[in-house]
Amino acid sequence: MAMKCVGVDIGGTSVKLGLFEEDGRLLYKWEVKTRKEDGGSQILPDVAASIRQVLAQEGVSLDQVKGVGMGLPGPVLSDGFVEVCVNLGWHNMNPQEELSALLDGVPVRSGNDANVAALGEMWQGGGKGYKDLLMVTLGTGVGGGLILNQKMISGSHGLAGEIGHIHVRDEEREYCNCGGQGCLEQVASATGIAREARRKMASCDTPSVLRQYGDQVSAKNVLDAAKAGDALADEVMEVVCHYLGVVLAQISMTVDPEIFVIGGGVSKAGQYLVDRIRGHYEHFTPISKNKAKIGLATLGNDAGIYGAAKLILD
Amino acid sequence: MAMKCVGVDIGGTSVKLGLFEEDGRLLYKWEVKTRKEDGGSQILPDVAASIRQVLAQEGVSLDQVKGVGMGLPGPVLSDGFVEVCVNLGWHNMNPQEELSALLDGVPVRSGNDANVAALGEMWQGGGKGYKDLLMVTLGTGVGGGLILNQKMISGSHGLAGEIGHIHVRDEEREYCNCGGQGCLEQVASATGIAREARRKMASCDTPSVLRQYGDQVSAKNVLDAAKAGDALADEVMEVVCHYLGVVLAQISMTVDPEIFVIGGGVSKAGQYLVDRIRGHYEHFTPISKNKAKIGLATLGNDAGIYGAAKLILD
Repeated sequence: MAMKCVGVDIGGTSVKLGLFEEDGRLLYKWEVKTRKEDGGSQILPDVAASIRQVLAQEGVSLDQVKGVGMGLPGPVLSDGFVEVCVNLGWHNMNPQEELSALLDGVPVRSGNDANVAALGEMWQGGGKGYKDLLMVTLGTGVGGGLILNQKMISGSHGLAGEIGHIHVRDEEREYCNCGGQGCLEQVASATGIAREARRKMASCDTPSVLRQYGDQVSAKNVLDAAKAGDALADEVMEVVCHYLGVVLAQISMTVDPEIFVIGGGVSKAGQYLVDRIRGHYEHFTPISKNKAKIGLATLGNDAGIYGAAKLILD
Repeated sequence: MAMKCVGVDIGGTSVKLGLFEEDGRLLYKWEVKTRKEDGGSQILPDVAASIRQVLAQEGVSLDQVKGVGMGLPGPVLSDGFVEVCVNLGWHNMNPQEELSALLDGVPVRSGNDANVAALGEMWQGGGKGYKDLLMVTLGTGVGGGLILNQKMISGSHGLAGEIGHIHVRDEEREYCNCGGQGCLEQVASATGIAREARRKMASCDTPSVLRQYGDQVSAKNVLDAAKAGDALADEVMEVVCHYLGVVLAQISMTVDPEIFVIGGGVSKAGQYLVDRIRGHYEHFTPISKNKAKIGLATLGNDAGIYGAAKLILD
């Protein structure tokens, strides 16, 4: 029987898990609740118990498992040590060593969830076939994951891929969660797009289908309206894609990936979004015709379990 | 007798060469003129002849040479192929294969000169002891070289480290050499600093020691005056260091190096410059206290030959 591996994606609300063949086939996926009480001390025992239960159900013994990979919602040092993981209540622990001990010594590796998702997209998603990619996740926030030569790059202080907090707008006066002003996340996240739309509506009298939503306008409303030709929504997306284009260009002139893979809820706008970002990216990279592709993520919420499983195969 | 290696740094005016011990000791350094006639076809034969002559003079035989590393003023693909090297007149050739053939098959490796200089600073210069660094060269232009895990990162299309062409200023109307507007190089190179000073003098009546230089004001004039407390020069350096801080912060949130090493003619301003850049860098990285150091390059014009020699030891 071929060896299997398990991918675990620990989030603040639920833990996603997947049982994989080594060739990347997902055999079974499931979820458990993230129990955050008692400083998150129940999370890893819950994960271990759930893995044991599913393996039994699937007729796989622990010694047929090559290892378990794990994505965590915070910075992870190269030896797996976690100084602090706010969303889980963890402090100064090594979750990969603890989970390994709970699973009779099965090898466990871990990484930051955004980086792990990028690895998943490289392995079996929108970045399949590429070695060097940067995944941009446009969700409630803006995240990023950098892969070079097929390996996750976490950075010297766990900051690699934190592209949501790249400063792009000098005139911004509101503060970002990070404490900065003018971060990419403040304009290009779902939250940021909605805020741009509210600001734009307040600043002009241009008629727009968005006005019916008032302060409840969402990023999806904006994208749908922009696609349908609404002038105000178009102006909002022009600003959003300008800053995304600036940042992707910066990244090309820093690490020069083969491809940018765009994921997260906002990326449901599909090729329309890719084409608009691409226009601005081209504008800010006149230095060379030969540069990165821009494509869409394809694994959705499963990117994390795929990438976590891939961690153990590297 | 221990093995030696040779580092070659080919520039548009001269070729710098160095004979090294494997431990990084520079035994002998010299230069030859870069003969660019006939599409640069004489350059590599000149380099090979010069290496043979110096080896003979130093009593080193070719079979005591582990290899020759070479920095080139343009993009170099991972197999050493050069599509075009404008400054040398080269098109579609593999200089490392050609030089190896001219030296009886001694191994030759090559890379872009800015990346190679960064490798040199990591090996024996301002980045010694670090594995992940980004070197910023503030000279006539602004260049960069990225090292991750002690290896040069050239990027998928040879654009990695081209940080001088990162867009930083939306309101810039003049064009950069790359065809863009608002590149870092337009404000933070020696040329850019002088231009900022000319603009500032033209836009206000603030008295300044810089006014005696008129349109001939240099970056060195500006830095000397700023250090001496000249208000106008201080405002110029505030703008320059603002954009440098923004770009270093971007780089931290993309690849997160351990250290930035600042080199090039402008870096002769020393710790004053580092401290000012650091202030702005801190401002744009509120996300974490734990982040990159900023230091000065120490090898000057020899960084290229050191890095080239290191190429062959990796």
